[in-house]
Amino acid sequence: MKNVNEIGVLFDHARPGRIGLPEAVFCQGKHISVLEKLLREFSAETERPILFTRLEPEVFEKMPAEVQDGVNYHAVSRTAYARTLPSRPGARVAVISAGSADAFVTWEAARTLEYMGIEHTVYEDSGVAGLWRLASRIEEVNKHQVVIVVAGLDAALASVLGGLTPKPIFAVPTSVGYGQALGGATALNSMLVSCAPGIGVFNIDNGYGAACAAARVLNLFQ
Amino acid sequence: MKNVNEIGVLFDHARPGRIGLPEAVFCQGKHISVLEKLLREFSAETERPILFTRLEPEVFEKMPAEVQDGVNYHAVSRTAYARTLPSRPGARVAVISAGSADAFVTWEAARTLEYMGIEHTVYEDSGVAGLWRLASRIEEVNKHQVVIVVAGLDAALASVLGGLTPKPIFAVPTSVGYGQALGGATALNSMLVSCAPGIGVFNIDNGYGAACAAARVLNLFQ
Amino acid sequence: MKNVNEIGVLFDHARPGRIGLPEAVFCQGKHISVLEKLLREFSAETERPILFTRLEPEVFEKMPAEVQDGVNYHAVSRTAYARTLPSRPGARVAVISAGSADAFVTWEAARTLEYMGIEHTVYEDSGVAGLWRLASRIEEVNKHQVVIVVAGLDAALASVLGGLTPKPIFAVPTSVGYGQALGGATALNSMLVSCAPGIGVFNIDNGYGAACAAARVLNLFQ
Amino acid sequence: MKNVNEIGVLFDHARPGRIGLPEAVFCQGKHISVLEKLLREFSAETERPILFTRLEPEVFEKMPAEVQDGVNYHAVSRTAYARTLPSRPGARVAVISAGSADAFVTWEAARTLEYMGIEHTVYEDSGVAGLWRLASRIEEVNKHQVVIVVAGLDAALASVLGGLTPKPIFAVPTSVGYGQALGGATALNSMLVSCAPGIGVFNIDNGYGAACAAARVLNLFQ
Amino acid sequence: MKNVNEIGVLFDHARPGRIGLPEAVFCQGKHISVLEKLLREFSAETERPILFTRLEPEVFEKMPAEVQDGVNYHAVSRTAYARTLPSRPGARVAVISAGSADAFVTWEAARTLEYMGIEHTVYEDSGVAGLWRLASRIEEVNKHQVVIVVAGLDAALASVLGGLTPKPIFAVPTSVGYGQALGGATALNSMLVSCAPGIGVFNIDNGYGAACAAARVLNLFQ
Amino acid sequence: MKNVNEIGVLFDHARPGRIGLPEAVFCQGKHISVLEKLLREFSAETERPILFTRLEPEVFEKMPAEVQDGVNYHAVSRTAYARTLPSRPGARVAVISAGSADAFVTWEAARTLEYMGIEHTVYEDSGVAGLWRLASRIEEVNKHQVVIVVAGLDAALASVLGGLTPKPIFAVPTSVGYGQALGGATALNSMLVSCAPGIGVFNIDNGYGAACAAARVLNLFQ
Amino acid sequence: MKNVNEIGVLFDHARPGRIGLPEAVFCQGKHISVLEKLLREFSAETERPILFTRLEPEVFEKMPAEVQDGVNYHAVSRTAYARTLPSRPGARVAVISAGSADAFVTWEAARTLEYMGIEHTVYEDSGVAGLWRLASRIEEVNKHQVVIVVAGLDAALASVLGGLTPKPIFAVPTSVGYGQALGGATALNSMLVSCAPGIGVFNIDNGYGAACAAARVLNLFQ
Amino acid sequence: MKNVNEIGVLFDHARPGRIGLPEAVFCQGKHISVLEKLLREFSAETERPILFTRLEPEVFEKMPAEVQDGVNYHAVSRTAYARTLPSRPGARVAVISAGSADAFVTWEAARTLEYMGIEHTVYEDSGVAGLWRLASRIEEVNKHQVVIVVAGLDAALASVLGGLTPKPIFAVPTSVGYGQALGGATALNSMLVSCAPGIGVFNIDNGYGAACAAARVLNLFQ
Repeated sequence: MKNVNEIGVLFDHARPGRIGLPEAVFCQGKHISVLEKLLREFSAETERPILFTRLEPEVFEKMPAEVQDGVNYHAVSRTAYARTLPSRPGARVAVISAGSADAFVTWEAARTLEYMGIEHTVYEDSGVAGLWRLASRIEEVNKHQVVIVVAGLDAALASVLGGLTPKPIFAVPTSVGYGQALGGATALNSMLVSCAPGIGVFNIDNGYGAACAAARVLNLFQ
Repeated sequence: MKNVNEIGVLFDHARPGRIGLPEAVFCQGKHISVLEKLLREFSAETERPILFTRLEPEVFEKMPAEVQDGVNYHAVSRTAYARTLPSRPGARVAVISAGSADAFVTWEAARTLEYMGIEHTVYEDSGVAGLWRLASRIEEVNKHQVVIVVAGLDAALASVLGGLTPKPIFAVPTSVGYGQALGGATALNSMLVSCAPGIGVFNIDNGYGAACAAARVLNLFQ
Repeated sequence: MKNVNEIGVLFDHARPGRIGLPEAVFCQGKHISVLEKLLREFSAETERPILFTRLEPEVFEKMPAEVQDGVNYHAVSRTAYARTLPSRPGARVAVISAGSADAFVTWEAARTLEYMGIEHTVYEDSGVAGLWRLASRIEEVNKHQVVIVVAGLDAALASVLGGLTPKPIFAVPTSVGYGQALGGATALNSMLVSCAPGIGVFNIDNGYGAACAAARVLNLFQ
Repeated sequence: MKNVNEIGVLFDHARPGRIGLPEAVFCQGKHISVLEKLLREFSAETERPILFTRLEPEVFEKMPAEVQDGVNYHAVSRTAYARTLPSRPGARVAVISAGSADAFVTWEAARTLEYMGIEHTVYEDSGVAGLWRLASRIEEVNKHQVVIVVAGLDAALASVLGGLTPKPIFAVPTSVGYGQALGGATALNSMLVSCAPGIGVFNIDNGYGAACAAARVLNLFQ
Repeated sequence: MKNVNEIGVLFDHARPGRIGLPEAVFCQGKHISVLEKLLREFSAETERPILFTRLEPEVFEKMPAEVQDGVNYHAVSRTAYARTLPSRPGARVAVISAGSADAFVTWEAARTLEYMGIEHTVYEDSGVAGLWRLASRIEEVNKHQVVIVVAGLDAALASVLGGLTPKPIFAVPTSVGYGQALGGATALNSMLVSCAPGIGVFNIDNGYGAACAAARVLNLFQ
Repeated sequence: MKNVNEIGVLFDHARPGRIGLPEAVFCQGKHISVLEKLLREFSAETERPILFTRLEPEVFEKMPAEVQDGVNYHAVSRTAYARTLPSRPGARVAVISAGSADAFVTWEAARTLEYMGIEHTVYEDSGVAGLWRLASRIEEVNKHQVVIVVAGLDAALASVLGGLTPKPIFAVPTSVGYGQALGGATALNSMLVSCAPGIGVFNIDNGYGAACAAARVLNLFQ
Repeated sequence: MKNVNEIGVLFDHARPGRIGLPEAVFCQGKHISVLEKLLREFSAETERPILFTRLEPEVFEKMPAEVQDGVNYHAVSRTAYARTLPSRPGARVAVISAGSADAFVTWEAARTLEYMGIEHTVYEDSGVAGLWRLASRIEEVNKHQVVIVVAGLDAALASVLGGLTPKPIFAVPTSVGYGQALGGATALNSMLVSCAPGIGVFNIDNGYGAACAAARVLNLFQ
Repeated sequence: MKNVNEIGVLFDHARPGRIGLPEAVFCQGKHISVLEKLLREFSAETERPILFTRLEPEVFEKMPAEVQDGVNYHAVSRTAYARTLPSRPGARVAVISAGSADAFVTWEAARTLEYMGIEHTVYEDSGVAGLWRLASRIEEVNKHQVVIVVAGLDAALASVLGGLTPKPIFAVPTSVGYGQALGGATALNSMLVSCAPGIGVFNIDNGYGAACAAARVLNLFQ
């Protein structure tokens, strides 16, 4: 029986120079032996740090102890890295979520920012069914340079927030919910047709992408 | 060529006694000669008033003058009736819409209430991209017994309002918008998965249905 | 490995005062350690009772005995609470289902009513393939103030019932069925386009929501 | 500019012998010059009668008078034929519709039966929002050998009827309705998942197909 | 923890008299303790036989030996019954499938016929990618009174067969396939729009329904 | 009011050298003044012939006579060109369609082949509801090097043909049909999941694409 | 017949101060008399300029000459304004489109930028089927601060460009194409799942939204 | 309990003679006992080799050692065969994939070619987010007679490649990705509407089908 990790991989190490964003390894769907190999390789590597996303706790727990010890793993966000990129001082990103159930995406965004050396603040559970939550935070949020909003279900937070901030705003729908939440498609579509103008939208659960978009904005300051 | 209005129709005149709601004629898709016949018949009829919905201005304008004069027609809502039902004093319904583009549905609800003799107030253009609009009206809205909310696009108004009122709340998505508004399906799904609990939802553009639901609640007071 | 229950939660304890409905914890998708913590916290709490929904038997059975003993758990409806809200005498709600397979939703509605102190009667297995079932019950059903109808598949019960009762009627589609039942979307759409007017519709399997809508109506009597 | 009616057509005149059903011409989408040519050809033809379906009044009215006079045209059903097939005595088909808006499909079925020489009775406007309509007719309906049910919206009539008749029952969903009626897909899906067993379903608006299915059953008696 | 089998069930034992079809128990989604109870009850029952459908081998194998011994179980079709209905001599049904992967549906239809005492012949693996398979069987197939065709993927067999038989023909799409087979929706839609006229279509994988439709035709002969 | 034909266009005249296929102008959605300008330009041009596709008769008829005279226009296929490419002798393509309603696609493929100088034969109306049509032609079809099959509705012809020819086979679904034909998506999906292996599928109504695919195969012979 | 322009409108003139973006009037679906009134009002208004989007040429041409003369109208982009906002020097935006058919969206973005006083360059017809088009422009594009990419069909341009620029990149799918282009949904989904990270996506055809997002980024520089 | 492998199977051993392609066994969904029987039968068989596709490692590992030893199994592609068909020298096929996550499809195509005796080269990880990967390989790719392109997500590789090669090109979308990747439907649709002409598309994950299409082209050379 042929080995499953014979698959050809070509890392794009020129990418940071070209687009200002590092490569990442999307772990979902990759065989555990491939992931173990990559985790070992990149935790030993000091020149080119790399971010692992969608690395499920069930998978990570099966790794040998020395592999687990070699990286900084965060279970809620399902991310891992051995070391972060140099910090980018000055600019800051606010990450706001509608509910605690959105945490796996909220923290994927936050951890990607952390990995890229970008300062950020996380504001969870700010959904509009209780508007006072958002009202008490908006002034502070507007002190950041970029706003990432994470929401599932009706994603009403994105529209309300879009009407309260002049900052670049990136919205990530989440797959939270059942029935007509449609695995996140309802939140996605609500964000795309939001009555508040100028909101850039990302794929369902793609906290990583929104963090990269924030980094693209921060590239302008460097 | 056989006549198009030979189609068999059986009016359900026992319906008011059975469910407290009068019959209505849904005009869309009916041949103009059928509509003319029905408009004549029911404007002459004094015992059993009837409501005509989805009667397009383009169609109504083609009717003979005496048919036009025989009914009270309202172009925005596309409704007509010869006379209203007896008024039901005491209870009141608030009809709130997100934008002026939702007017055809907002007023279908309002006119159906008017036809059923139910007092109501209309609050248009209360969308959440400018939260101050809703904030300035919520106290007054909560003085009504039932709230009907009409919204297209992301329908975020329904969720915000659902978190601010303890009243029975009926939500009507509208087909306003383009692209991922999906002809109103995005608004519909947002309302169905709203983070605010206890909101009864209706078919896209069905202002008539929400008014009937309000009437069912008011039936309890009589 | 960071702890999964560090996620930020902000309970909206002002909600009952604002909208007349208590907060609930939607358990699906929450980590078992988070749920255990919340169950402990709220069974000790006597001031602010809370309802747990979508708490699967497989999950509940894994809780320590003292946590299980601290709450009133109901396996069919997958709900739990430590104590109910004060009873609201006078008004009563009928909960009618099409088939026994809809029980998980039927009883979610019934248990939510029980938790909110609202009197109710449950009529299961009243589907229209055998019309005699419904016929024998309709007079009794009409003695209630609000009617909740629960049905999957073609949801024909909602339309038939809507033509036989003048009461506020809230319809919950269920995910029962296979193939073109489309996980409940067919039942949902059938309810939305029902030929019987004034039926408020809820998300698929959302018995909790319909019970909250009934409570909003009963708020009018207090 | 090349002529549009040069398209190659191969009539399948052996079909009646093979499957007991005659050929038909589906007119929608065919160029008016093609239709005129076919109408002339088949009204002159006495050996092989043919049925024209989906022939819109707007199109038929543009035909020369002698072409119009050469066929029996029925505007509601949009069908035409020059002569019918020999009558098939003995067996009878009931065609029942939910509403008068379904007439274009109801009568397509009825006219196809008429063309095939099959006795039939039409019962329109029998929808379940007023159950008394169906109740007063069911005994008579059950005296027919085959039942065709035509309904749009929630198609609840199909389920109710399926629980009241032991006859072969063929259901045709119609495109009547708006919003979540989804152009007839909701009615179609409701019929497919009906709680009443043994109902054969046809494409949206395909009254012709259901009449052919009835003819297949009647083939057994000859 | 409340017992899961307290759910209210009302068997419709008057159904055979009313529509000529016996009741069946759809097992999927029912709790194993409920199924065990029903299997015991109906294997003891001699007056009213009942058919169990969608009873998975994994579930049946967990039943106590005496319950397993009390019924005639068939793993491919996932059906069980304690005894069949009286045989209905004279009429015969052909069940034809496109591929061996469709067997779970093919045999659900066949077993339902067996249970209802209807003679039948099964022709598997007759797909049109090798037309010779069907060609060699068509003459024999046409000696039956009713034809049931079972096919997944493109369901081309239904169209080809519909052009070769004058008999009532009932088509069941199957969920066989991947990707754009869409869980059977492609086969379903292909059957609904088939170029061969008069084919009644059933829900995806609903072999039971097609057998009931065949029984409705055979009701005419008794 | 700014002129609508100021839009920037960059023709890819290097394309034939790179991929062996000439550029084409897709006319649908282009403003009539833009089309007139392009038709004039390319009918004067002798070096670089170009193909116009989706040029509706209603649009073409509005062009000045000298523009109409400058090109070879074919109304059924909605194509135009001033001159063809040099003929490619030797290889031949068969274009087979299921029905005469598919002609607009059938002939788009044929005309594109003609424009590219490729010999071809067209076989229309070969649908499988009457298998004799295909049977009488299959031997002749197999004398061509490439087969293009055009079909709407259930697209069963593609599967049957795929089981009868060893040649490269390209399948084009058409938007012919109503209801669950879903504007050609049912035909498309049927072709994609066909039980006959090795069929390359094209976008709905894309006869042009299939002809280009045939040309890619014929590129191998030159 | 009541007047159609009695609908309540509440302009949000505080919006620029709150979110740095001016209000716009979305004209599609608004009655021509409403549009005429608004165009008159805002061309007279010198304090608060406003942008009109989706103002179709067919509608604009019906306006009285003095209304037409009062605004700067651009037919391709369907936009109008009486005067622009003060120019914002320094920062520049590149607008790149895949094909000339995307022009109505490309220019909606460009005109919105022009109206907001933002410098920009438009690069049309840069699709990847001829990669040389993009290659020759990429260096120049990267001299801008923000990149807007407009593409329909497969939207491959967004992915290729995302891998070649470190700038904030906003992608607008267009409704160009037929069949499986699905009115722009295929382009939208391709952009959302692009293999190039950090691309913010907008609703189908929403060039206005992408320009607002660019303005949000430029807000950071002021 | 009846045996699950009693299902009727009719192998189409005349297929190679008829269409130049051998039969294959699609293993997914088949019972393990059926697969074991078939693997034994065909590894003993020397006259008629057969290919097994979609044979999951988890299933294969449960087979007895002698069954495992009797075939050449490849885990990534999930394929097995006992012996290959005679080699077809001369023509060669390039198989190019966008990412390493597409490997299960890439290698299904490659292994099917190997089984059919067709020379081929595999180029993995050539996605367009790093265009240099494809650029460095295109000249070599164009030395093959047929190109198979395998890509998930936005499938932009297919369009870019289609603009760089004159060879027959067959595109296979993969189910790689999450959210709006829609299980491969986005990649499929992108390929169908590609701006590069003449690309034949296959079902999601159907590497086997593309290899068969390549074989149909190579049939022309023999």
